[in-house]
Amino acid sequence: MSDITDDLLKEILREACGDDDGEPLALAVCHLDGTVVSAGDDAVDFCLQSATKPFVYALALDQKGVDEVAERIGVEPSGEAFNEISLEAGTGRAANALINAGALVAHSLVGEADDDEGTRFEKIRRLFSTLVGRDVEVDEEVADAEADDAHRNLALAHLLAEEQVLADDPHEVVRGYGRQCAIRVDVRDLALMAAVLADAGRHPATGERVLGRKAVRYANSVMFTCGMYDAAGDWVYQVGLPAKSGVSGCLFAVAPGRFGIAAFAPRLDDHGNSVRAAAAIEALSDRLDLHVLDMVPGGSD
Amino acid sequence: MSDITDDLLKEILREACGDDDGEPLALAVCHLDGTVVSAGDDAVDFCLQSATKPFVYALALDQKGVDEVAERIGVEPSGEAFNEISLEAGTGRAANALINAGALVAHSLVGEADDDEGTRFEKIRRLFSTLVGRDVEVDEEVADAEADDAHRNLALAHLLAEEQVLADDPHEVVRGYGRQCAIRVDVRDLALMAAVLADAGRHPATGERVLGRKAVRYANSVMFTCGMYDAAGDWVYQVGLPAKSGVSGCLFAVAPGRFGIAAFAPRLDDHGNSVRAAAAIEALSDRLDLHVLDMVPGGSD
Amino acid sequence: MSDITDDLLKEILREACGDDDGEPLALAVCHLDGTVVSAGDDAVDFCLQSATKPFVYALALDQKGVDEVAERIGVEPSGEAFNEISLEAGTGRAANALINAGALVAHSLVGEADDDEGTRFEKIRRLFSTLVGRDVEVDEEVADAEADDAHRNLALAHLLAEEQVLADDPHEVVRGYGRQCAIRVDVRDLALMAAVLADAGRHPATGERVLGRKAVRYANSVMFTCGMYDAAGDWVYQVGLPAKSGVSGCLFAVAPGRFGIAAFAPRLDDHGNSVRAAAAIEALSDRLDLHVLDMVPGGSD
Amino acid sequence: MSDITDDLLKEILREACGDDDGEPLALAVCHLDGTVVSAGDDAVDFCLQSATKPFVYALALDQKGVDEVAERIGVEPSGEAFNEISLEAGTGRAANALINAGALVAHSLVGEADDDEGTRFEKIRRLFSTLVGRDVEVDEEVADAEADDAHRNLALAHLLAEEQVLADDPHEVVRGYGRQCAIRVDVRDLALMAAVLADAGRHPATGERVLGRKAVRYANSVMFTCGMYDAAGDWVYQVGLPAKSGVSGCLFAVAPGRFGIAAFAPRLDDHGNSVRAAAAIEALSDRLDLHVLDMVPGGSD
Repeated sequence: MSDITDDLLKEILREACGDDDGEPLALAVCHLDGTVVSAGDDAVDFCLQSATKPFVYALALDQKGVDEVAERIGVEPSGEAFNEISLEAGTGRAANALINAGALVAHSLVGEADDDEGTRFEKIRRLFSTLVGRDVEVDEEVADAEADDAHRNLALAHLLAEEQVLADDPHEVVRGYGRQCAIRVDVRDLALMAAVLADAGRHPATGERVLGRKAVRYANSVMFTCGMYDAAGDWVYQVGLPAKSGVSGCLFAVAPGRFGIAAFAPRLDDHGNSVRAAAAIEALSDRLDLHVLDMVPGGSD
Repeated sequence: MSDITDDLLKEILREACGDDDGEPLALAVCHLDGTVVSAGDDAVDFCLQSATKPFVYALALDQKGVDEVAERIGVEPSGEAFNEISLEAGTGRAANALINAGALVAHSLVGEADDDEGTRFEKIRRLFSTLVGRDVEVDEEVADAEADDAHRNLALAHLLAEEQVLADDPHEVVRGYGRQCAIRVDVRDLALMAAVLADAGRHPATGERVLGRKAVRYANSVMFTCGMYDAAGDWVYQVGLPAKSGVSGCLFAVAPGRFGIAAFAPRLDDHGNSVRAAAAIEALSDRLDLHVLDMVPGGSD
Repeated sequence: MSDITDDLLKEILREACGDDDGEPLALAVCHLDGTVVSAGDDAVDFCLQSATKPFVYALALDQKGVDEVAERIGVEPSGEAFNEISLEAGTGRAANALINAGALVAHSLVGEADDDEGTRFEKIRRLFSTLVGRDVEVDEEVADAEADDAHRNLALAHLLAEEQVLADDPHEVVRGYGRQCAIRVDVRDLALMAAVLADAGRHPATGERVLGRKAVRYANSVMFTCGMYDAAGDWVYQVGLPAKSGVSGCLFAVAPGRFGIAAFAPRLDDHGNSVRAAAAIEALSDRLDLHVLDMVPGGSD
Repeated sequence: MSDITDDLLKEILREACGDDDGEPLALAVCHLDGTVVSAGDDAVDFCLQSATKPFVYALALDQKGVDEVAERIGVEPSGEAFNEISLEAGTGRAANALINAGALVAHSLVGEADDDEGTRFEKIRRLFSTLVGRDVEVDEEVADAEADDAHRNLALAHLLAEEQVLADDPHEVVRGYGRQCAIRVDVRDLALMAAVLADAGRHPATGERVLGRKAVRYANSVMFTCGMYDAAGDWVYQVGLPAKSGVSGCLFAVAPGRFGIAAFAPRLDDHGNSVRAAAAIEALSDRLDLHVLDMVPGGSD
């Protein structure tokens, strides 16, 4: 493990990511003893956006249990075609926790049934504060902008409400989810958050349990099979790590039992994944033999 | 034409519709000279529900023109699977004017861009008043009940708004559309309305043009190919007339150049079409050789 | 009716079809008294290709009855996406008689269960000979070329065999269907064939019944809702006549109770329909008010 | 590792699998040093059926390279609905190597372009002989029975041939694939085969490389995301191991860097997976903490 140095990360950024005219670029790895190594623009912060989804899903699983959540959020991959909004045939569930439908339901499941919008959001914000070890802030400007142009999420939320799968008022859930997406961190924070998922829910800095082991297994599983949108298939073969991107250009990956990994670079590909963050994490997986399905006896590090 | 008598309609109701323990049952035919013949419970009134759709579509076509409407509402059949909400791939349009997505768009296209909800609805109500020759009323209780449980339509309206296909605020359109569905008429009124579509837009009682000929051709065409939901295929083969049902149990059909036809009986089949109203109209089409694709020289009447 | 003259057809070809550098172009109308009027390259013959489908469907309906055919061929429109081969969910039927799956089944249903390939084909050839009033010939070169590149039809035929919907050996049916497609006629023949469907199955030249009335109603209905491939929706609105094209560039339309119409011009649009043949028939429908859903009392001719 | 004993496997069979009136039941684990532990009816042999697919895919990858194979076989999950045969839109590829379309293509890619049916099959049989360490035999009766009822595979093969994705004659490939499925082994053989995939392609008994590391990574990846048919989602969450079943009731799983696992019990669930073999392997994964996404530092054994 001692072979992960600043220099290695810098080398990977240089070799794997190409130039991009001054666009920020950062890479961080968090060991399971809490040590964080980073390179590049590691002080730039960004909104987590969809990278919040696996954590809120795990929180909902912890609070409500696998069975109650499974009645509302499935575990199947879902190709989302252009402007089609589909729930699971027969059940009306959201297909999985990483598409917006599932993320809205997971958000609505946090807290108590009679929590108001603010109370529910505060519980979610507190999770992220615990994960990164300090009070996280919401970029209210981003949150407001999302609220003004939320027709697609409102469509989903009303549809979920019709199916009695959403646990709260559609407009409140969409607003709360917009604020969840606008939580700000930097790449070292995100590597720390990923490390919690790499250590079965234990916090690497404090050693305390933040999320339940089963909830983390579910979060890792949904990321492995559905985390990189339509690019899912290829990522599994080439990188072999659970991962989740955010539209801000952030991306994190989980090497179970080994590290949390995060990268940040704003330019996106057609699937909405950061081009250079994906390249950095793929190079790191390759260099350190992290692919979970390509292990040899005794491991590789 | 003189062979359509009360007695014929009574005979058809008796032979084709079976008994249904006191459920209302009515059948009416309106000739293109304005004469209406009817049988059964022809004084019972009911909400038009989806039977309003072709008329509002024709009104939007008259007011905005075929090209502007075609940018927002397509002309293709659309099988709607369980809890799937789909717009046309590539265009974001509603597939056609008879599914709810298209009906919401058509509603939003009536009137001027800056009409408020009440003004727009008043223009729609006025159309139906002209069609039946007296002021039609809205069943406000039904309209309110729909508004309380409108999640699916709100989902559609928000999705259409995202695609910039809806011409007004989603919540206003859904409320206005709910009131449109709650307009009340009886079976003789509905036969008169159908007769306007059978005479290319001319009102059979007054001789005045109520709807444009091209708009009526479009309304008849969408009813012929998409009017009877999933049952569309079979109805075309067996009955061969443009038709539209409402969930209240009403159903009307258009025999172009010949008659307007309407029937009413509340019990619905799995497709949401009135079982006995459909049977009555099928028997009438059969008896009078009305199938538009099964004509012999000189016609049959 | 007397207003359909050579000059009218010539005018329509000139105005509606544009120039195409010497590509053949022909238009013909057959009255229900057997008179054929034509213009353009009316002596050029061509393979019927898919234009055979409605006739063989009608023949199968006559021989086996509506119920037996309906167990194997449905009556629903079917959008065929790129390289997807789908049968009806739940039944395994071909969706309708105009997609290749349905055409293969219809071919296999003609004749007796123990007919060999040659006998079955001879019965089909005889139908077309009766329709045009002389022995039709098969373009064996075209038939052989089709047989050499028939993987898609073989895929369909094997799938239908698995569903026990095909009534004969897949390879025999595909070969026989290839010969069916290669039957040659000219545009006047095709107008005559269309006139049989316009007169409910009666032959306009001989007055004899060639196809049953119900079978013809079914053939016209499937053409109206599914005849022009993905362009179906638009054709219904603009032209309003049952129609079927062949990949050779032929196209025929049925004006029930009035005329049979045919056109020929090889260049195809993206849907596989002849560009100029479609334009000619649309112009004719427009000029003579043939749209079946846009009639006024007394008709238009 | 020394904690895997006959007694443990017996206990798992007893606790996890329930009674099934004399149906055979067997479980085996192969360590990466070649030691095989087994329990139950471990001498009963069975046809591998679809369990051959990942191995032949890996062989094709070794022989042709990732790029050439990727032009013909994708890496995306594919829900196969009732009697729908779909290739990837745009490419015409088989969606992945575990659906029949992909397995047929993989079969056709083994060997040289001009290999005849027998030569190609012999190369495939030799792979399985090497994997199990003795000459494997084909159950010719099963192979013949499959050949007699192969309409669905022939449909697929013809479709793939049309898309120029199949590397050989459709009928030859379907026959050869039928023989591949009829290769017989027992549960200890299958655990040994799985162990090759668990050790990145190295044979645990001989230490020799049988399959390339990248090919094995691809085989494990496709099994992880697509291996258990429609049940894929749930298996990933609960068991977390690449696995593949055969319709004979066999099932194997790969614990990368740790073990090969196999089980056999004929009764199948609705997805075509062995009910009791799946229960046994799930219990084993649970007992030994094998889930690849739920690791803690240092592993669990």
